[in-house]
Parts: sequence; structure tokens; C-alpha cells
Amino acid sequence: MKKIEVVQNILEANDSIAAQNRELLEANGVFALNIMSAPGAGKTSLILRTAAELKDRLRIGVIEGDVASTLDSERVQNEVTAVVQVTTRDASESCALIANMVAHALKRLPLEQMDLLLIENVGNLICPSEFALGEHMRVVVSSLPEGDDKPTKYPIIFSDASVVVINKLDFLPYVDFDIPSFQKAVLGLNPRAKFFQVSCKTGAGIKDWCAWLERELSSHKSHQKIMK
Amino acid sequence: MKKIEVVQNILEANDSIAAQNRELLEANGVFALNIMSAPGAGKTSLILRTAAELKDRLRIGVIEGDVASTLDSERVQNEVTAVVQVTTRDASESCALIANMVAHALKRLPLEQMDLLLIENVGNLICPSEFALGEHMRVVVSSLPEGDDKPTKYPIIFSDASVVVINKLDFLPYVDFDIPSFQKAVLGLNPRAKFFQVSCKTGAGIKDWCAWLERELSSHKSHQKIMK
Repeated sequence: MKKIEVVQNILEANDSIAAQNRELLEANGVFALNIMSAPGAGKTSLILRTAAELKDRLRIGVIEGDVASTLDSERVQNEVTAVVQVTTRDASESCALIANMVAHALKRLPLEQMDLLLIENVGNLICPSEFALGEHMRVVVSSLPEGDDKPTKYPIIFSDASVVVINKLDFLPYVDFDIPSFQKAVLGLNPRAKFFQVSCKTGAGIKDWCAWLERELSSHKSHQKIMK
Repeated sequence: MKKIEVVQNILEANDSIAAQNRELLEANGVFALNIMSAPGAGKTSLILRTAAELKDRLRIGVIEGDVASTLDSERVQNEVTAVVQVTTRDASESCALIANMVAHALKRLPLEQMDLLLIENVGNLICPSEFALGEHMRVVVSSLPEGDDKPTKYPIIFSDASVVVINKLDFLPYVDFDIPSFQKAVLGLNPRAKFFQVSCKTGAGIKDWCAWLERELSSHKSHQKIMK
């Protein structure tokens, strides 16, 4: 039983730091997404497309989580207000971002000059679902070449997502991916899940996704004002 | 420091069980592969193609590792001598197979009637590299739609692999994937890595991969006889 207790303590400590992160974000009026997916599903490309679409109206910060390398930060740095790279290689929880890593990254971001924080988690459909980071919303990116059976094989991450972005729609002619059956499997786990179908390569569907995201952000801000 | 000690103990215990698994496999003359990849890269498809190519000459057993579901076992059950599904969802190490799970699965396999064991690990490029299972060889499957930057982002799993199977070669016209640059990055981490380029969809490259695997298996068997 000892091991399970230790794991429990880690998760409790994580939740408490995540709550502090959330408070700091709220205090600065920053809305945060935790973007999760399998390796290569297109998280960075979605961030780039989202930033290109929204950067004239919103100030966007990014936290890039990776096991190793700064490749993703290099890709996004010219498109956003600020980016911080977190590499998890030397941490024992190297399979996901944890709240403490995000807490450190938040100290290095100009939060008072930001409206939206996009946190790109480590490419992994399992571990990231265990660790709250302080985000307002969890986004899972699923790409067509991965296959439509992922909700059945990795149910937990889909159960906790507010939004599932189906990416690489341009691959539809070349793959066996049944979009309605994929959506049905997600809804079976998570009846409130919202879907967007996009191609980060062609830009298809990006405007719809960004318009919705902007509305969510406004509605969150209005709600916060009422609460104050 | 407590947590790190616990993790250390888990890894040591795992290595000791992996060594027992390896002894049991050797005693039965079974050669075992630990097949790892990101979700949806084609581990199950590679197992199906390998079984179809080799099943007239080799008796093949399969251990299917997944967080949840028996989808993969259902796919392979008619193609191989025996299959055991391991679901990791309820285990705290749910992001990879561990040696203990394989030890239990080995008890349910007819080892004395098998030549080759294909262990399909959980779809994940991070956690599986930490846990030896008792395998003779580690295989990483990388698929073209994932992108060619994965060795840089997930270096550990590529460092430990004997073989990297580049799958979904039929996607080459539709993706930006520089095969030489990918291979160079892997060789930078792991100079002895061997590569195969396949399409599990069309069957391209499968004969080469299987011929090589069969040679490795024979050479292992000859070596074992000399040692006895």
C-alpha cells in the first residue's frame, strides 16, 4: 500500500499547486487551455493557427511542454506575445506537465499583458490526464491517421476534455477514420464534449474553432466580472 | 527524497521480474520483442503483417497491452497461436506495461509451443522505455504522419531501440517527413539502430523486416545452443 499512498500525496500536492496557478491566472484575467494529444497529432500546429487567427485581438502566451528539445518554442516564438519552454526529461514525472512546472513557467510569463494562455502538454494520451495544471479548459487533439479507436483505448483523457479537435482533416481520403463513430465513442465517455474538425495544414475549420474559443473567453470574463 | 527512493525501488523490482521473464522465455526457446510506439503508429498492424508472413514457419504468441479495451486482441486472435490481453487502466503504472504484468501474461501463454513472442506495449513514446519486460529486442514503430522530429523530442525510447520500423510509407506523398534526417537523428542517439521502411497497409517492406527478424531469431537460437 505504501506506493499508492505516495502517488496519492503527489496528486494532492499537484492539485493544490494547480489551484494556485488558477488563482494567479484569474487575478491577471488570463484564460488557459491545456492542450493534450498523442505525439504528432498537431498541438503545435493548432497553436500556430490559433495564434495567427487571434493575435490581432488577443494577447497570447504559450507554455511548451516536451520531454526534450526546444523545437516547438522555436516554431511559435514569432507568433505570440511570449513563450516558455518546459522540458520534463530530468523530472521523474517526465510523461506529462505537472502543476509545479507550470507554476515556474507562469513566473516567466508577462501575465498582466496576456489574455489567453495555451499550454502545450507533452505528447501522450495517458499521463497528462492525471495532472491538473490550473487550466480553465482541457482540449484533446486527435488526428485522423491515428485511427478512430483512440477513445476506446485511452478513455480517461477523452472523459475529461471539454473540447476534442479532430485534426488532419486533409487526410480523410487516405485513411479509415469514421468521424461519426469516433464522436459517438467520445460522447459515450463525455456527453458534454464539443467537437471541431480542422486541418492545421490547409487552415480548414480554424475560423470556427477560434470564433468559439473567443466566445468562451468573453463569456468567462463576463462571468468573472459578475462574481466580483 | 522519499519519492525518488520509491521510484528507484519500483524500477529495481521491475528489473528483477524482467530477468525472471527472460529466463522463462529462454528456457522455452521463445524470442521476445517489445514493440513500442505512439498511439496509432501501427503496432497492431505490424503484428498482423508479421504473423501473416511468418506463421507457416514460426509459432507466434502475442501479449497486447492497452490502457483499456480488448480491440487489439480481437484483431490478432485468428492470426497467431495465442494472445493475452493486458489492460493497465486499473494499475497505477497505467502508462506502460511493466514486467509483472508480462509475468502474469506469460503464465497464460503456451510457451513450450511458441517460437516468437510479440509484446505490444501501450501506445506511448515515454513511459515504456523505463520498464524492461524481459524482451530480447526493443522495436520502435514510427509512422510518417507523426512527423520526423520525434527522436529529438522523445530521445530515450529511440536510444534503447534495436530496431526502428518506419511505418505508413504509403503516406510519403502527403506528409513532410524527411526519412534521411529522421534516421540521422536516431543514429545520433543510437548508432547501432537498424531501420526498416514498411507500409502495413500495402505490405511494402514487410518481407524484408520478417526475413531479418527470422535471421535474428535463428542466430539467437544457435548462440543459445553453443552456450549450453
